[in-house]
Amino acid sequence: MTGPGVRLAAEELHPALSDPVLDAMSFLNEIMARHPDAVSFAPGAPHLSHFDDLDPDRYVRRYVAHVAARRGVSERRARQVLFEYGPSRGLIGDLVARALHADYGCAVPERSVVITVGAQEAMFLALRVLGRTPDDVLAVVNPSYVGIIGAARLLGMPVVAVNDTDDGPDLAQLAAECRRLRAEGRRVRALYVAPDFANPSGTYLPAGARRRLLELAEREDFLILEDTAYGFTGPAARRAPTLKALDPGARVVLLGTFAKICLPGARVGFAVADQPVAAARGERLLADDLAAAKSMVTVNTSPLAQAVIGGMLLEHGGSLAALGRARAELYNANLAHLLDALERHATGPDLHGRVTWHRPRGGFFVRMRLPVPADAALLERCAAVHKVLWTPMSPFYLDGSGTHEIRLSCSYLDPGEIDDGVARLAGFLRSLPDTRRRSP
Amino acid sequence: MTGPGVRLAAEELHPALSDPVLDAMSFLNEIMARHPDAVSFAPGAPHLSHFDDLDPDRYVRRYVAHVAARRGVSERRARQVLFEYGPSRGLIGDLVARALHADYGCAVPERSVVITVGAQEAMFLALRVLGRTPDDVLAVVNPSYVGIIGAARLLGMPVVAVNDTDDGPDLAQLAAECRRLRAEGRRVRALYVAPDFANPSGTYLPAGARRRLLELAEREDFLILEDTAYGFTGPAARRAPTLKALDPGARVVLLGTFAKICLPGARVGFAVADQPVAAARGERLLADDLAAAKSMVTVNTSPLAQAVIGGMLLEHGGSLAALGRARAELYNANLAHLLDALERHATGPDLHGRVTWHRPRGGFFVRMRLPVPADAALLERCAAVHKVLWTPMSPFYLDGSGTHEIRLSCSYLDPGEIDDGVARLAGFLRSLPDTRRRSP
Repeated sequence: MTGPGVRLAAEELHPALSDPVLDAMSFLNEIMARHPDAVSFAPGAPHLSHFDDLDPDRYVRRYVAHVAARRGVSERRARQVLFEYGPSRGLIGDLVARALHADYGCAVPERSVVITVGAQEAMFLALRVLGRTPDDVLAVVNPSYVGIIGAARLLGMPVVAVNDTDDGPDLAQLAAECRRLRAEGRRVRALYVAPDFANPSGTYLPAGARRRLLELAEREDFLILEDTAYGFTGPAARRAPTLKALDPGARVVLLGTFAKICLPGARVGFAVADQPVAAARGERLLADDLAAAKSMVTVNTSPLAQAVIGGMLLEHGGSLAALGRARAELYNANLAHLLDALERHATGPDLHGRVTWHRPRGGFFVRMRLPVPADAALLERCAAVHKVLWTPMSPFYLDGSGTHEIRLSCSYLDPGEIDDGVARLAGFLRSLPDTRRRSP
Repeated sequence: MTGPGVRLAAEELHPALSDPVLDAMSFLNEIMARHPDAVSFAPGAPHLSHFDDLDPDRYVRRYVAHVAARRGVSERRARQVLFEYGPSRGLIGDLVARALHADYGCAVPERSVVITVGAQEAMFLALRVLGRTPDDVLAVVNPSYVGIIGAARLLGMPVVAVNDTDDGPDLAQLAAECRRLRAEGRRVRALYVAPDFANPSGTYLPAGARRRLLELAEREDFLILEDTAYGFTGPAARRAPTLKALDPGARVVLLGTFAKICLPGARVGFAVADQPVAAARGERLLADDLAAAKSMVTVNTSPLAQAVIGGMLLEHGGSLAALGRARAELYNANLAHLLDALERHATGPDLHGRVTWHRPRGGFFVRMRLPVPADAALLERCAAVHKVLWTPMSPFYLDGSGTHEIRLSCSYLDPGEIDDGVARLAGFLRSLPDTRRRSP
């Protein structure tokens, strides 16, 4: 063997690897690593204080005792179940179905639940199963979560984007896209939507908008992929029902994660897919197809990790509502703190009309518009000079817009860091060129 | 909402979901569930006794102490790392690189290692990244592991199969396939091969065959996806080096799992991809592309699950060789027991020439040839009447052959179950019609 050695070129790998979406993620990680002294409004990760009371080993023991009692086996045998391979659909579908009923009023059968490696794998599987050919198109709003765009890119699934409004997806535009594609012999197969303080837009769909969206899905015959990641935040009294709870006809595939309320490090999420599928060997559920696809992607979700989440669900009486409320307190306080700090630091005649931001009532994110393009070079300068980091929004847009927008996340920070970060941010904002038309 | 409700048809979902490969898996699980009293030679799962001495909580604590010492942080902070999201390439790449060096003589940099959700995700990511268009073709042997065929199907990657010989892939046939595809403007992008007692064939490649395979890969310019799952079994003294250890030119992407030696329930595997990739933003490694693709499939492998494996590696001095040898003792004894039981029960003039089997020196599997097609109906009858289960081999073949072959796995059973199962199997074999030509 004296070969010259392999040298590959990016151009001969899958095109998704050169997509700005995937690049944006690694660029952000890289710049955060290079500026450890910067206050970072970039990561939408849970607050570290929420990990202090976690005890994975206790949760596992709790789940083992549950399995032993439920199956009538020894604890030794129940423990073995966590060490073995498991079913592709997962072990804790019963507990998840019960929690969805308790917490969201979603009555779904256990066999419609597939436990996944986070919500990301749930999205990935849903797109793979529903995208038979490139004629099956995914609809999203502009801007959308980077994970759904990236999954579609990696699967070569075409994506159309409609505008985001205060009521969520622009329904007239979405209907027009459905008709346009149908005229071409194609179709909107599914719409991805995060109706509860979406990442990155912060948009929250009122109950009426949810009903109208479901009606359109019925009329135009597409499925809805509903992402519930941030549903536990915001004022509980005003919470609209999930699309899935409003959905009598199985239009909705529900996608969820335990990362925000429990812990990201278990990598446990789920898909609920109760759509009947007619097949030669009798009727099955779409969940069966998701599980079959999963068997060729990750085989199954770590049973040990599932036991951690299963044990947490059992400790909380089969519901995560109370824990979610406790977690939401910090996030809602942080969000109020961020909005208040922006009001104090980033207002005044010199910034008036140059910098604007949204004021969501929940979620982790505030969207801000700058007077100049918020590109990598600007972020680099902001990090180096002003020691504060944010997320450029343009990779979340599919139409090249959003160039002037940034996302500020407050979930990971403490109030003092938020104050400090906003003061730095204000300095950065004031350093930007004044592009307002001057009076003569 | 008074819509008629969604009804999907299998024909409108991704075609892989209707592929016999995916169907075969669910059929096997289903028939095992229906015949709990049967002795099953079907599952290639680790023996349950290997779980008795496992203590995941201890491994996690061990790993936490290691991280705290290595990063100079508190144990509280080190524990938080396991609860957070983590890097897509994983946390324990350093420990895995060290173990690969200690156990296989593979000197690979830490940054070439990507920790995956089992070897399955490693395969899936490798195929996705390397398959730019349908002109990039995967080569496999006939028969091959169902997971690689299923992953290719799910990604729409074309597959060509070459014959399996005692020396592994038929190199003349493989070279011819390379030339044929090149003439069509396509190419064999990678060959998947499990050189150590492959599932399901049991084939073991001698060192010379490994070198010739690497030479062909260099000459015909394809990569090798080397699956090491069963490398720890078999007589240690005669063990050939891994392809990766023989590979100076980064022809080989190494795929591995900790399922067989440690535990499947952690779902931790890895890919080693040290191939340089030229890109606009400077040179990277193929591992970087695998990690980027992973960020859109599962984001990252559960840090908690990685800590379980990391702690096990640390407990065993950074090597799994000794633990692998201990595990292999049982498997090698089981295999010898199975081959001996077949010799005792399934021979004699009435079966002579009608039933044949291979005699591998390691691994979990014995391949057997029946005088009749080993299809689902035959398995169903065997389960119902003879109370013994096996795996039909035809789904592992891509050319419609292998119809008369079955796979017997001995990893999960005890010697008594093997004896009992083989006695039942012999009864089944004797019940098969005698298709030998009778003398006049």
